[in-house]
Amino acid sequence: MNELFAFGQQILASQPFSALLGTELTTFEPGKAVLSLTVRDELKQQHGFVHGGVLSYLADNALTYAGGSMLGDSVTSEYKINYLRPAIGDRLIATATVISSGKTQAVCQCIVSVIGEQGERDVAVAQGTITKAAPKA
Amino acid sequence: MNELFAFGQQILASQPFSALLGTELTTFEPGKAVLSLTVRDELKQQHGFVHGGVLSYLADNALTYAGGSMLGDSVTSEYKINYLRPAIGDRLIATATVISSGKTQAVCQCIVSVIGEQGERDVAVAQGTITKAAPKA
Amino acid sequence: MNELFAFGQQILASQPFSALLGTELTTFEPGKAVLSLTVRDELKQQHGFVHGGVLSYLADNALTYAGGSMLGDSVTSEYKINYLRPAIGDRLIATATVISSGKTQAVCQCIVSVIGEQGERDVAVAQGTITKAAPKA
Amino acid sequence: MNELFAFGQQILASQPFSALLGTELTTFEPGKAVLSLTVRDELKQQHGFVHGGVLSYLADNALTYAGGSMLGDSVTSEYKINYLRPAIGDRLIATATVISSGKTQAVCQCIVSVIGEQGERDVAVAQGTITKAAPKA
Repeated sequence: MNELFAFGQQILASQPFSALLGTELTTFEPGKAVLSLTVRDELKQQHGFVHGGVLSYLADNALTYAGGSMLGDSVTSEYKINYLRPAIGDRLIATATVISSGKTQAVCQCIVSVIGEQGERDVAVAQGTITKAAPKA
Repeated sequence: MNELFAFGQQILASQPFSALLGTELTTFEPGKAVLSLTVRDELKQQHGFVHGGVLSYLADNALTYAGGSMLGDSVTSEYKINYLRPAIGDRLIATATVISSGKTQAVCQCIVSVIGEQGERDVAVAQGTITKAAPKA
Repeated sequence: MNELFAFGQQILASQPFSALLGTELTTFEPGKAVLSLTVRDELKQQHGFVHGGVLSYLADNALTYAGGSMLGDSVTSEYKINYLRPAIGDRLIATATVISSGKTQAVCQCIVSVIGEQGERDVAVAQGTITKAAPKA
Repeated sequence: MNELFAFGQQILASQPFSALLGTELTTFEPGKAVLSLTVRDELKQQHGFVHGGVLSYLADNALTYAGGSMLGDSVTSEYKINYLRPAIGDRLIATATVISSGKTQAVCQCIVSVIGEQGERDVAVAQGTITKAAPKA
């Protein structure tokens, strides 16, 4: 396990909300991050689909990771997400890549897919700005 | 308690993810919805702020409610969110309003604020499209 | 005419694309900017409505002005726009306001309306991030 | 020249604003559209870069074309754009692709690049929703 991946896992482990949802870091390399999460009933909405807020959370976090792979400790400044279809399945995969990166900001995109009985299907696509965290005083 | 508000509470109660996060419906009237949520450690990220994914979830859900106040049973098709500052405090409030509404879609905006020791401060602002849910076959 | 407004007019006059479209600065004060533009056939699309690209341009520019009223010389880093209805009329008005402003960035919103035979109607709404221009070396 | 491409060119020719800017259709096939445009001084802002509004217009139009390649006559409902760097060069290229398409809407992404002395460089990236135009009464 390389240093960047270990750093990424440490960040994820220190996010109580990610622990609550059960997020795992699958890939973390310069310019790319993959987060995944096992679907359980607690994460659903009233129609039995995964709640959009879970997809948003996962996309947001994957975008931050992708940007952070270039910038170091980072936050999401903004993003937009389009939901493509209801998320029905067993496992969510959010794959984020860096489109452009400067000294303090990176623009990243993310595709969220769900793996279920029908194979893997895209359920959301996101695009946003990641900003290097300001050093602490 | 009027009929619309009762309908809104019923939807919220039937969303397991909203129950997991502890979301409450405060206001639900034609063109406007307010959701709130008590901050607890489980909802935070590594720096002790509320995780952005929680703000996104709450904004997304409030947008759906606002649109749904005009359209009936609805889903968020897409939205964008800008985070304004770290969310530090005890309670999140997401206030969403309808900007424009047609037969099948509404465009809504939402401001998320946090109430804490420093009073109430805006922490995120969102804008998105809400689409009337297709009738079931 | 105050200093800020004069500065704003000078910037607009030095934008060839704004001159091509005929954009005028109506209001420019701390936290708010209004740009307007007379509709002519050259600015339309195939159905006779104002081309969405004109609405986007005007929203983008108004967002930059609003942010610039707080930050000085600025650029739009990103924005999102929802079109609300076809833009039919004689004059476009883009009103942008600052939602939150820091040292180097501001988050702003903008409503674009059209004035025509049916009075004034909103045709688009936008939200984006304005960034202070880096000082020249 | 195939039928779809001929249809696309006819639409572009009937958009006065696209004629004003000098937009050309380079590629138009199911799921993909490329628009291009020669940079001239009239399209610039105060620093000599291509005005962001031109990039937005081109991205918006390319998104509509990509969606329209699947849906037929269409409009952009909403999109978001991130500017990546100043657009300096001779020619803009907007390449849009369909991410997901249903009966009435498609979600598309677009990359805008500029070709200049430094070769081809990405200057903006966009994502949005294209909606099939309602049939006329």
